[in-house]
Amino acid sequence: VNVVRQSPPLITLLTDFGEGSPYVAAMKGVILGICPQAIIVDITHAIRPQAVEEGAFILSTVISSFSRGAIHVAVVDPGVGTSRLPIAINTGDAVFVGPDNGLLSAAIPDALRPEARAGAGPAPVAAIAMRTIHLDRPAYHRPQVSATFHGRDIFAPVAARLAAGLTLDDLGSPVESVLAFPVWCAQRAADGSLRGRAITIDHFGNVITTIRAIDLPDASFTLEIAGREFNGPQSTYQDGPDDVVYTGSSGYLEVGLRNGNAAEALGVAVNDPVRVRPHHNP
Amino acid sequence: VNVVRQSPPLITLLTDFGEGSPYVAAMKGVILGICPQAIIVDITHAIRPQAVEEGAFILSTVISSFSRGAIHVAVVDPGVGTSRLPIAINTGDAVFVGPDNGLLSAAIPDALRPEARAGAGPAPVAAIAMRTIHLDRPAYHRPQVSATFHGRDIFAPVAARLAAGLTLDDLGSPVESVLAFPVWCAQRAADGSLRGRAITIDHFGNVITTIRAIDLPDASFTLEIAGREFNGPQSTYQDGPDDVVYTGSSGYLEVGLRNGNAAEALGVAVNDPVRVRPHHNP
Amino acid sequence: VNVVRQSPPLITLLTDFGEGSPYVAAMKGVILGICPQAIIVDITHAIRPQAVEEGAFILSTVISSFSRGAIHVAVVDPGVGTSRLPIAINTGDAVFVGPDNGLLSAAIPDALRPEARAGAGPAPVAAIAMRTIHLDRPAYHRPQVSATFHGRDIFAPVAARLAAGLTLDDLGSPVESVLAFPVWCAQRAADGSLRGRAITIDHFGNVITTIRAIDLPDASFTLEIAGREFNGPQSTYQDGPDDVVYTGSSGYLEVGLRNGNAAEALGVAVNDPVRVRPHHNP
Repeated sequence: VNVVRQSPPLITLLTDFGEGSPYVAAMKGVILGICPQAIIVDITHAIRPQAVEEGAFILSTVISSFSRGAIHVAVVDPGVGTSRLPIAINTGDAVFVGPDNGLLSAAIPDALRPEARAGAGPAPVAAIAMRTIHLDRPAYHRPQVSATFHGRDIFAPVAARLAAGLTLDDLGSPVESVLAFPVWCAQRAADGSLRGRAITIDHFGNVITTIRAIDLPDASFTLEIAGREFNGPQSTYQDGPDDVVYTGSSGYLEVGLRNGNAAEALGVAVNDPVRVRPHHNP
Repeated sequence: VNVVRQSPPLITLLTDFGEGSPYVAAMKGVILGICPQAIIVDITHAIRPQAVEEGAFILSTVISSFSRGAIHVAVVDPGVGTSRLPIAINTGDAVFVGPDNGLLSAAIPDALRPEARAGAGPAPVAAIAMRTIHLDRPAYHRPQVSATFHGRDIFAPVAARLAAGLTLDDLGSPVESVLAFPVWCAQRAADGSLRGRAITIDHFGNVITTIRAIDLPDASFTLEIAGREFNGPQSTYQDGPDDVVYTGSSGYLEVGLRNGNAAEALGVAVNDPVRVRPHHNP
Repeated sequence: VNVVRQSPPLITLLTDFGEGSPYVAAMKGVILGICPQAIIVDITHAIRPQAVEEGAFILSTVISSFSRGAIHVAVVDPGVGTSRLPIAINTGDAVFVGPDNGLLSAAIPDALRPEARAGAGPAPVAAIAMRTIHLDRPAYHRPQVSATFHGRDIFAPVAARLAAGLTLDDLGSPVESVLAFPVWCAQRAADGSLRGRAITIDHFGNVITTIRAIDLPDASFTLEIAGREFNGPQSTYQDGPDDVVYTGSSGYLEVGLRNGNAAEALGVAVNDPVRVRPHHNP
């Protein structure tokens, strides 16, 4: 599997290092030292510390905005320095580089990922129909690999070498399986309702849920969250009452508050349960 | 009206999405997919949510630091998905892209903008002596335009197409008027004093006022804010007492505190009134 | 002394302006107006306001991640507009641009810098074996230099002109000495223990100390901080108990907390004392 390379090559970065972290700058310095023409785009560095699944979800929502050939580097890595493997995955559309802890789940087709289950962590899935390697060739890493900063010492130089033209074959050995989080979607209950959860909260306080709009063919529904009920969907923040339920820009149901912070007003936190009862069609 | 294009083209972004927002990354992915050679500079993404006027003011203070031909994309857009128009304005020096809600006031000559009035919102002004269009050509937007994220789906692709060489004529139809905030300057009272307000507060806690230094030809003055009086101007943070009033780097009077946070120490918030009494010249 | 220039030229920025500050954007606009092909990398803008030494330390930890020829611009500048000089230093490996207040200490060889002393500020050191200039040529600054924003009006245009090919000879006059902070390392007490302090705290709450791993040839030691004792070193966050002492990615001892914030849990602040007692070798 080859990936169409962009010219100039584009590398994205997603970490939990914090906005303004000099650790991010160190990664950029390493990348540009190896591939000076690379374009680097920050996805975000504001993933909550060690929140691997939230990082994986955020990555999944933005990759469709990038052209084919992007190299996505993600580092939310509480197991750095342990036996968890540093890996790279080539999907044909893009290459993903990071730790094998579920963070790169967006590189795995939904059909291969575990089914949605409340509270489930990442599970091993077969590395079928894609190319996945263990980054086990120290010649392509920094000369001194620290125990705590693989972002700078392994992932950044590997991404830069991919940007400069090396292939996954050059950079490591195939692995048979990788960890992936369950698909972010609702579970359908016997009564026809959909059960999901809050998966992330954006800067405006909008609550993004795991309920996908495509799973709701009905015209209207009632959404329950934090002991409150909302009727949906409205299409914009200006529709209907102040509390609005709408299909967000990534295709998931969101709960927002006009000119306010819904998560704070409702007391909602990441992973809180959400239930949707579709109304009967006329 | 043509604008001198830069090589490589330069696109700036100003939003209220929050630093570290993946929504910003999505806009960059779209831009670079259409115009890979574009240079993208973040103005800020820390505009307070829905604070349209503060965003408009901040944009006005930085555009003079950019060369001719820059494309400024601004998205503080509480009315996204409603009837407010997506627009672009070509001033001859630069192109501005964003919602028609006053955010692009810096593109409008002061002589056309409403006079300063306390508490006044944006008002329609004639689109004279410049070129302004409604971005009404879906062929140049993303194939699926969401109801809540025109930054990614309309403004980013339009800016990228301008960067790639299209003109406003290609991208939309002329409009007759646009919304603009009143000019950011003081109102002169019958007693000769100047009345303005705090328009924004920077990271250091310096309070930026709407009082322009060019409106104060006198050598010295007394500034009142939050029930306190300060004599000015000092020229640097190290002048005079700990509390200093000086002409900031954008030409407006600012109130600062040496090695401290003036806004917190004084209890000043955005929009608080400020009065300046010029002293008699000798 | 000439410096190898990069192609494209690379300019880094470190300030205390705050993440998302439009002041940073103004600097970038000025740089790109003079040298459109410059690659700009943000080191951080989250240095605590006026924390000159913390900024100097952070800069020292990241420069080794950048290739030869980088131009590092740093602005933590409480003395802006006073008699402190704007300077540039060419080390042969890189050029540093900023105020002469100790912020550029990383450009000074350790052998020339003052010895570590608790609470010591920057002191003058001879500008030997390097090239240091006072940026005293207004023709290379912005036409109007404000009293409060030399980042935009002096340092940015000077860095851009270095990126565009000018040399230090063009931009200013030699100076004999510059200010430098004492070397960041421990003081060895008569009993063989090492005394240092917390020099910065990262986004995860890891406490970075001034104790260098290379000063601890012994296999094990006890570290005292905030009235607590820790045995070290562990090599990763997953080693040993929840509280871990390890060699961080820049070669200094750090105190971390597995999946937690050590600085908050321990109540540690920047400049708090740290003591290390090496154990006897067997």
